[in-house]
Amino acid sequence: MADLYVALLHHPVFDRRGEVVTTALTNIDVHDIARSCRTFGVRAFYVVTPVDAHRALARRVVRHWQSGHGAEFNPTRHDALARVRLARSLEGVEVDIENSSGFIPRKIATSARPLPNAVDYAEMREALKAGGAPFLLLLGTGWGLTTDIVEHAHYRLPPISGGDDYNHLSVRAAAAVLLDRLAGTR
Amino acid sequence: MADLYVALLHHPVFDRRGEVVTTALTNIDVHDIARSCRTFGVRAFYVVTPVDAHRALARRVVRHWQSGHGAEFNPTRHDALARVRLARSLEGVEVDIENSSGFIPRKIATSARPLPNAVDYAEMREALKAGGAPFLLLLGTGWGLTTDIVEHAHYRLPPISGGDDYNHLSVRAAAAVLLDRLAGTR
Repeated sequence: MADLYVALLHHPVFDRRGEVVTTALTNIDVHDIARSCRTFGVRAFYVVTPVDAHRALARRVVRHWQSGHGAEFNPTRHDALARVRLARSLEGVEVDIENSSGFIPRKIATSARPLPNAVDYAEMREALKAGGAPFLLLLGTGWGLTTDIVEHAHYRLPPISGGDDYNHLSVRAAAAVLLDRLAGTR
Repeated sequence: MADLYVALLHHPVFDRRGEVVTTALTNIDVHDIARSCRTFGVRAFYVVTPVDAHRALARRVVRHWQSGHGAEFNPTRHDALARVRLARSLEGVEVDIENSSGFIPRKIATSARPLPNAVDYAEMREALKAGGAPFLLLLGTGWGLTTDIVEHAHYRLPPISGGDDYNHLSVRAAAAVLLDRLAGTR
């Protein structure tokens, strides 16, 4: 199986009016998505924000669980948060993966809305199984990834659906379902 | 498809030492799981706690999004939280479902650890599709559902796995994956 990475973008993302904004870091996103990443064998989970203070906050959360009381109190949380990395931008994530793996990662865009030229989940799962260069699953906060990021991704996935047109999952829930669909075992 | 209900239990559940405890209500659990339930067509989501103050808190959260500013600000959140119901105990949930549907629900136990006599996900999905009496998916907070609840369930599901033995998902992430496995469409 190809290596899978996950990036949670706080910029550039859309707000409810379709403006490009920077969203605030949400502590529980870091925890939940790190735990899901660890469960489904994701190589590293990048928390991406250009706001220095937010990266500093994320770093403090990770350190709390990496050393001292947090690590002893909950070793499984320690394991999960060991895979968290911080980045200022998506470009920074790509360079980091390129430096560590020797490959430019193939980006997978996700959205709660249907995206043009989407692959289906079975196809994407097969592509992952086939190996080769690593994949980078992109998750948007706020009202989702910008059009520019979606268009420049190598793959686009369909929205997660439960049968009707409502799919307002939290990014934490969406991340878990996406990883299960791509890398889960039954 | 049979009606599917979800119950999030704060009592009786295990703590890390295997003692039976009552856990605190977590606001974000109510939001995230309500949104996942709405996405995957769950009939109602029961937040179960014997602590009166915690049910009162949950009620305030739900009301905020049901009327006034919250409902206008975010109508999709309004939709999701409209399916939240409160209960003091699992027995209360069962009686409520029996009263509204005319059937005693068939309980499905979940766990991060392998349970004896588990059905697999494909089987469970087929049973749901076959219709009949409603199903009630049980989620435990803390360190999970007690042995007694697991043994008295009609079905037991295997832990969610990503290939190795680590499966410390948040209950929010686990709920999303479970619902996708049982009721998602691709």
